[in-house]
Amino acid sequence: MSTPVYLDYNATVPVRPEAADAMTAALGEVGNASSVHRFGRATRRRVEAAREAIAALAGARPSQVVFTSGGTEANNMALLGTGRPRILVSAGEHDSVLRAMPQAERIPLQRDGRIDLTALATMLADDPRPALVSVMLANNETGVIQPVAEVATLARQFGARVHCDAVQAAGKLPVDIARFGVDLMTLSAHKLGGPQGVGALIVADEAPLQAIVHGGGQERGFRAGTENVPAIAGFGAAAQAAMAGIDGMKRLGEWRDRLEAQVRRVAPMVTIHGADAPRLANTSCIGLPGVTAETQVMALDLAGVAVSSGSACSSGKVHPSHVLAAMGVARDEAGSAIRVSLGWRTAEGDIERFLDAWSRVARRHQGAAEASPAA
Amino acid sequence: MSTPVYLDYNATVPVRPEAADAMTAALGEVGNASSVHRFGRATRRRVEAAREAIAALAGARPSQVVFTSGGTEANNMALLGTGRPRILVSAGEHDSVLRAMPQAERIPLQRDGRIDLTALATMLADDPRPALVSVMLANNETGVIQPVAEVATLARQFGARVHCDAVQAAGKLPVDIARFGVDLMTLSAHKLGGPQGVGALIVADEAPLQAIVHGGGQERGFRAGTENVPAIAGFGAAAQAAMAGIDGMKRLGEWRDRLEAQVRRVAPMVTIHGADAPRLANTSCIGLPGVTAETQVMALDLAGVAVSSGSACSSGKVHPSHVLAAMGVARDEAGSAIRVSLGWRTAEGDIERFLDAWSRVARRHQGAAEASPAA
Repeated sequence: MSTPVYLDYNATVPVRPEAADAMTAALGEVGNASSVHRFGRATRRRVEAAREAIAALAGARPSQVVFTSGGTEANNMALLGTGRPRILVSAGEHDSVLRAMPQAERIPLQRDGRIDLTALATMLADDPRPALVSVMLANNETGVIQPVAEVATLARQFGARVHCDAVQAAGKLPVDIARFGVDLMTLSAHKLGGPQGVGALIVADEAPLQAIVHGGGQERGFRAGTENVPAIAGFGAAAQAAMAGIDGMKRLGEWRDRLEAQVRRVAPMVTIHGADAPRLANTSCIGLPGVTAETQVMALDLAGVAVSSGSACSSGKVHPSHVLAAMGVARDEAGSAIRVSLGWRTAEGDIERFLDAWSRVARRHQGAAEASPAA
Repeated sequence: MSTPVYLDYNATVPVRPEAADAMTAALGEVGNASSVHRFGRATRRRVEAAREAIAALAGARPSQVVFTSGGTEANNMALLGTGRPRILVSAGEHDSVLRAMPQAERIPLQRDGRIDLTALATMLADDPRPALVSVMLANNETGVIQPVAEVATLARQFGARVHCDAVQAAGKLPVDIARFGVDLMTLSAHKLGGPQGVGALIVADEAPLQAIVHGGGQERGFRAGTENVPAIAGFGAAAQAAMAGIDGMKRLGEWRDRLEAQVRRVAPMVTIHGADAPRLANTSCIGLPGVTAETQVMALDLAGVAVSSGSACSSGKVHPSHVLAAMGVARDEAGSAIRVSLGWRTAEGDIERFLDAWSRVARRHQGAAEASPAA
């Protein structure tokens, strides 16, 4: 069989060569970044260079960057460490936000996938307690981009703080904590071509925050534990490479649009979830009525094309996407949606490979449906 | 200057080539271990192979291994996730145990560095609430080995559960959760030649435990967040290499003993803290009266020899070791103690380099003290 095609970048991204090189260099050098001797100091310099790269990506100062073990921990920290008596989260947030604080109030989504700002305004007006509002920048399943700057402006009118999970957006869109006006922002390395196991919480100076991992005084007391130097170095290099290559998103957007046009031509009954809202250029969430996502994913996998049903974090479990449910998509329809996501190593031929394989699946099921209309 | 000498293995260990190779292989392969397609499944196999290696190291079943972001998180999870109303920790535990639950009761140490079992028995007898007892296998500063099996036997008599932080012992001593009879055991990759940023909590089946990081259902619900596949793969390879090389500890023990004999010859007034107890073969905690640890560490660093004062996690801050304080060592004396720790890449010449440099420091200060006895 020809080389398998990877179109599941929103699950994880191939490590960029710049990141792999930075990690290899760091792995070849011993040192605990908290040690005072020369080995420790050299290691510390790697960490601080990476901190500067992440700060540049986030429009922040290096002192506002707290390295964590990944996006999940950073999201947990933003919600659990905030000390605010009231937490509002959009209904389409990632599980690492929703499950960090199950008792948080849910801000509804509109049918197009964007947050209902009117509902948010009412929720903020109805309860005077100081709130934290957590709204992601771009959704992992649909790619829908939330109006985070508007959310922040609204929240400020009610004295609320704002956390933004920018894990899926970073490297695909400019992410600028000051321009968005948010207090806390989450990043993850492996979603932009860095290694798994490292992320960051960007903490604006005004935002008070409690650590959730306790021990040594690393990360200015915000995050205990020996610094994960190779991964942090890889994160920094990946952030720089992602920023340098962000113009490539335009090309991916053209390919994605062509892919969707072709999919609609093959099967006019498909729904592209989130297509009525601004979206990440790399993401397509395609619903094919009557064919479960699992069937499509497995058939594509057999044909050597990797896509996902929903997010990797919850795949394996058969429950419909909470994101599509929050957009008002019926359970059956949500269960037939696959996610195709492109990235830095995607080639034009990969799109053709997907279209060939998916068209066969769609035509087979159309044929079957026409042959036995009662099925 | 000749190549600098690294004798700070208890802070972090040079990554073993087997671990670096496993990481490089994993970094070259894209995949989220929770994805169902072929890329995900291949990644999952790497994770499960590493889980088997860690289970073999710990005398556990693979299903008892929960990967975490490191020893600090695993220690936090053991204490915070246990749900027991009463927590007893030895006074010499690592900060990631002590600070995870500052209200925990402290079990005193004896002068030799070992836990006071009589005091523990009294504490357990005095309060009938179900307890968790947390005692490390080997101390990071002194190398003193705790009688963990005896602690566990005693704890069981009172219905208490036992957590053992084996971070500093693993790879230097056999660590067998069943033989020790403990319910929870913490491991860290980078202390045995794996990468930073990954560790494990070994969870005996009977021990109920709550997750402290929430989100996706990874690690059977015990630890959310995309699996850190390259680091996990490196951890597995390092664990195998450390087990295969554990006989090398005998040679390190001989070198350490010679080092201590020579140090005593140069400066008979030194104290080797913990020398009256069983110790890790690689660790020496040397107190040179009248010369602060910082002075020694800096002078040695200038001479190209890296050792530490206390643990790296708290270095930079000038406060005396809580471990030595718990052993009844006076503040001044504790402040003059350095830690020398050897490991897999240590060569005999490194010991000579340390002795040359340290002897110069000791003689200089002896000379100064003799020249101005009032100083």
